[in-house]
Amino acid sequence: MPTAADALKAHAELLALAREHSLLSSCADLLEWDGETFMPRGGVGHRAEQLAALAGVLHEKASAPRVGRLIEKAWPLGVDRGPDSPEAANLRELKRRHERAARLPRRLIEERARVAAVAQQAWAQAREERDFAVFRPWLEKIVELVRAEAAAIAPSLDPYDALLDLYEPGMTGAEISRLIAEIGPPLRTLLAAHGPFGKRRGRSGGAGPGAGVLEREFPTDRQKLFVQAVAASLGFDLEQGRLDVGQHPACIAIGPGDTRLTARYAERQFASGFFAVLHEVGHGLYDQGMDPADAGTPMHDAPSLGMHESQARLWENLVGRSRGFWKHFFPRLRNVFHEALARTKPEAFLAAVNRVQPTLNRAEADEVTYNLHVAIRFDLERSMVRGDLAAADLPEAWRAAYAAALGIEPSDDAEGCLQDGHWAAGLFGYFPTYLLGNVYAAQIYAAAARDLGDPDAAFARGDFSVLLGWLREKVYRPGRRFSAAELLRRVTGEAPAPAAMLAALQARYRPD
Amino acid sequence: MPTAADALKAHAELLALAREHSLLSSCADLLEWDGETFMPRGGVGHRAEQLAALAGVLHEKASAPRVGRLIEKAWPLGVDRGPDSPEAANLRELKRRHERAARLPRRLIEERARVAAVAQQAWAQAREERDFAVFRPWLEKIVELVRAEAAAIAPSLDPYDALLDLYEPGMTGAEISRLIAEIGPPLRTLLAAHGPFGKRRGRSGGAGPGAGVLEREFPTDRQKLFVQAVAASLGFDLEQGRLDVGQHPACIAIGPGDTRLTARYAERQFASGFFAVLHEVGHGLYDQGMDPADAGTPMHDAPSLGMHESQARLWENLVGRSRGFWKHFFPRLRNVFHEALARTKPEAFLAAVNRVQPTLNRAEADEVTYNLHVAIRFDLERSMVRGDLAAADLPEAWRAAYAAALGIEPSDDAEGCLQDGHWAAGLFGYFPTYLLGNVYAAQIYAAAARDLGDPDAAFARGDFSVLLGWLREKVYRPGRRFSAAELLRRVTGEAPAPAAMLAALQARYRPD
Repeated sequence: MPTAADALKAHAELLALAREHSLLSSCADLLEWDGETFMPRGGVGHRAEQLAALAGVLHEKASAPRVGRLIEKAWPLGVDRGPDSPEAANLRELKRRHERAARLPRRLIEERARVAAVAQQAWAQAREERDFAVFRPWLEKIVELVRAEAAAIAPSLDPYDALLDLYEPGMTGAEISRLIAEIGPPLRTLLAAHGPFGKRRGRSGGAGPGAGVLEREFPTDRQKLFVQAVAASLGFDLEQGRLDVGQHPACIAIGPGDTRLTARYAERQFASGFFAVLHEVGHGLYDQGMDPADAGTPMHDAPSLGMHESQARLWENLVGRSRGFWKHFFPRLRNVFHEALARTKPEAFLAAVNRVQPTLNRAEADEVTYNLHVAIRFDLERSMVRGDLAAADLPEAWRAAYAAALGIEPSDDAEGCLQDGHWAAGLFGYFPTYLLGNVYAAQIYAAAARDLGDPDAAFARGDFSVLLGWLREKVYRPGRRFSAAELLRRVTGEAPAPAAMLAALQARYRPD
Repeated sequence: MPTAADALKAHAELLALAREHSLLSSCADLLEWDGETFMPRGGVGHRAEQLAALAGVLHEKASAPRVGRLIEKAWPLGVDRGPDSPEAANLRELKRRHERAARLPRRLIEERARVAAVAQQAWAQAREERDFAVFRPWLEKIVELVRAEAAAIAPSLDPYDALLDLYEPGMTGAEISRLIAEIGPPLRTLLAAHGPFGKRRGRSGGAGPGAGVLEREFPTDRQKLFVQAVAASLGFDLEQGRLDVGQHPACIAIGPGDTRLTARYAERQFASGFFAVLHEVGHGLYDQGMDPADAGTPMHDAPSLGMHESQARLWENLVGRSRGFWKHFFPRLRNVFHEALARTKPEAFLAAVNRVQPTLNRAEADEVTYNLHVAIRFDLERSMVRGDLAAADLPEAWRAAYAAALGIEPSDDAEGCLQDGHWAAGLFGYFPTYLLGNVYAAQIYAAAARDLGDPDAAFARGDFSVLLGWLREKVYRPGRRFSAAELLRRVTGEAPAPAAMLAALQARYRPD
């Protein structure tokens, strides 16, 4: 019978091991960041091998039988301290991680890391050359590997659910399907009313005021300086992080004091660069807002990717497309890009950043169509994982899905199924977290507005610190102390539900 | 009794373990590079922990008893294949590495990595603030740790010899002392004759022609472009590497296809930036020239740091300060920096880059005084390691040594004992490899000239490929197949000896 002292000792050893795991895992994060930003072309092969070796060591450590025994010994401590205690939270996550690792053969882990690293290069090349054939064999390999992974982790589950649970613990494909069914009709109604063929073109504006504003000349060097200044205004600490040009936008948290954002800029696509950075800033504010005392422990993370994503979407959209935000920033933007914006009215600019328009690109989609993009990916990836859709048939299935959902089709696969790098990275079951992010974001933002009053007035004064302070206290500092659903309940009083999101969209796009 | 098949099998497993070790170790290389270049200030603490965790894992793997047993089993294979076989070379190095690791407690390894990472930041701060006191406590800690390391590795050896052997296998402090005694008088004679107070100011120039040429305005952005072009001309492949601005000049080989150089530029100090890059390019050419088939095995490295350094010094000085080199590059340089050089004669420029002048700075020292700088560091670090010199007394001892050897004294410790980061990084016993590098470089260069004829004519045509091809074949591709002394013997027919270096200097500085 283990004593209380045994449990304490086991818990302390587990935390030391967790810290080591987190440090080694953050080495892989730096390798990823470097691959995004500065790695020379010739380094690809070696980088893949480095990531595989690290993945192997991490797996070896996480799956060690000793860890299982320590968790068993320490478990009574979590029970004793109560389900909301840090000890219980850490033990829950350690158990989850250990069980998952113990079920996976090391060979599979290393193979997956190696293949993903090379597949991502093949994907980038395929996208550049607009040639799906370059990526197809790698996609086949990846699907095969994630299927093997799913079967190993949870042989009794639907394989897609096994993967989804990696990113959003406890979530299932069936629940995502229900959610999509619930939001689909109202989103389509909004699209019909406010999209380019809709009757209402006030603020949401099809070809109305502001059309083309965002496609004027915005020199990229000035975009970089401007978004850096905006990031700092929102509260992102650039002494404790960086903002670089990378292959695609990302937030990579290396460790406490080192949170790195990447972005891409194109001269005539101001919105795509700008809102992508706001998105990553949102992720970055979450990472910078966690309790440093938890660093290295399982607590020092968001409870789920959906919850993390919620903060990216909150800052990108609920803050970044608001009237108050642009009341503050538009005059500054116009000073920086005077050639492009000298004669643009603030209202027209606000309309442009809120335009509803079916497009082929998820990352740059407006808030109304965004979730429809995610729904398409969810259907396709679930079919691939279940073996109902062959990789070779993906381009055709993609085109059909876009035609059905948005009435448009990509002219090639670069605009189509090659636009996102997730599958190349082996991330299946990840896309639904974007949808959940939107849902959680709207619920949390509504709760903030209830507590703080309409944040718009503060934004108009350039004050984002009241909102950030509230989010830090309620959402960021607790880290992974609670599950996503429990955290949401504590912050908003609600279970996950799309009503707040739909209400916010309906309010934003109400007839002027 | 192990069979031949057992030995083969053990050897194969050892190589797989060596590859893993090399991959994990190259993750630490990337962390170091990032620390040099892009890491935000807030990331320092976490970086130290990351490096310590990796060092711990590497040590755990290298010291595993299983490795010792495998080496024992595989050993007959090396014997069977002969001492010059790759198998023997790999087994020798693996044995050396395993024995060293097995003698070191993991706690010490991790502590050393952690302390070195923080000490380097303290050193940088101390240098910036010109305040030795900021660094002193860290230097004390570091000296204590390397002494503990030396005692653990080789309790019967002089502690300094134990450390020196890490970088230059088989070398001793006594041999370095002898070498210094041998080269000191002729170098001092050269200095007396050609230094600023000497009688001969022809090419070596004191205040003669070319004085001040290198201190004119050389805009740093153009310096970067120019050295990048020079690096490419010499044969450094920028698709398989990078050249960035870093805290100090370095060559960090991440892996095959990924060799990274860092450099610093100052507008009015052209020579310090330029020759530092040439130096790192030399290291980089060595790394890029090794046999890719050996990658991940112990063979895929230089036999010693002195040998690696020899190639840095060869390209920096024997090539980079030669008449032929500047015959080719000076007109190009003048095109880029026309304001600074429009009225400068080629001869005056050549004199300027070959000026002999006692200065306070090792890295930028001319070829005559350079080894005198190294001799000072050797004496001081040996005294610290042996416990004869306290860290607190270093600044005073430094000033006295410079006064005695070069007749000058630093005005503060930033110019003095804080100028090099080696000790902060825990590198004691490393400095003598610079001296050995000069010695080996001259011997190897003389052998190349015997084989190829005077390389100057080819340089004048911009052709560096013949020399590079020769070096690749003779020196770079063999990697660590032979010891430094054996490689030198095969390439030059000689044992390590300073005659070639002294002869080359005497030839360069002969009366015009």
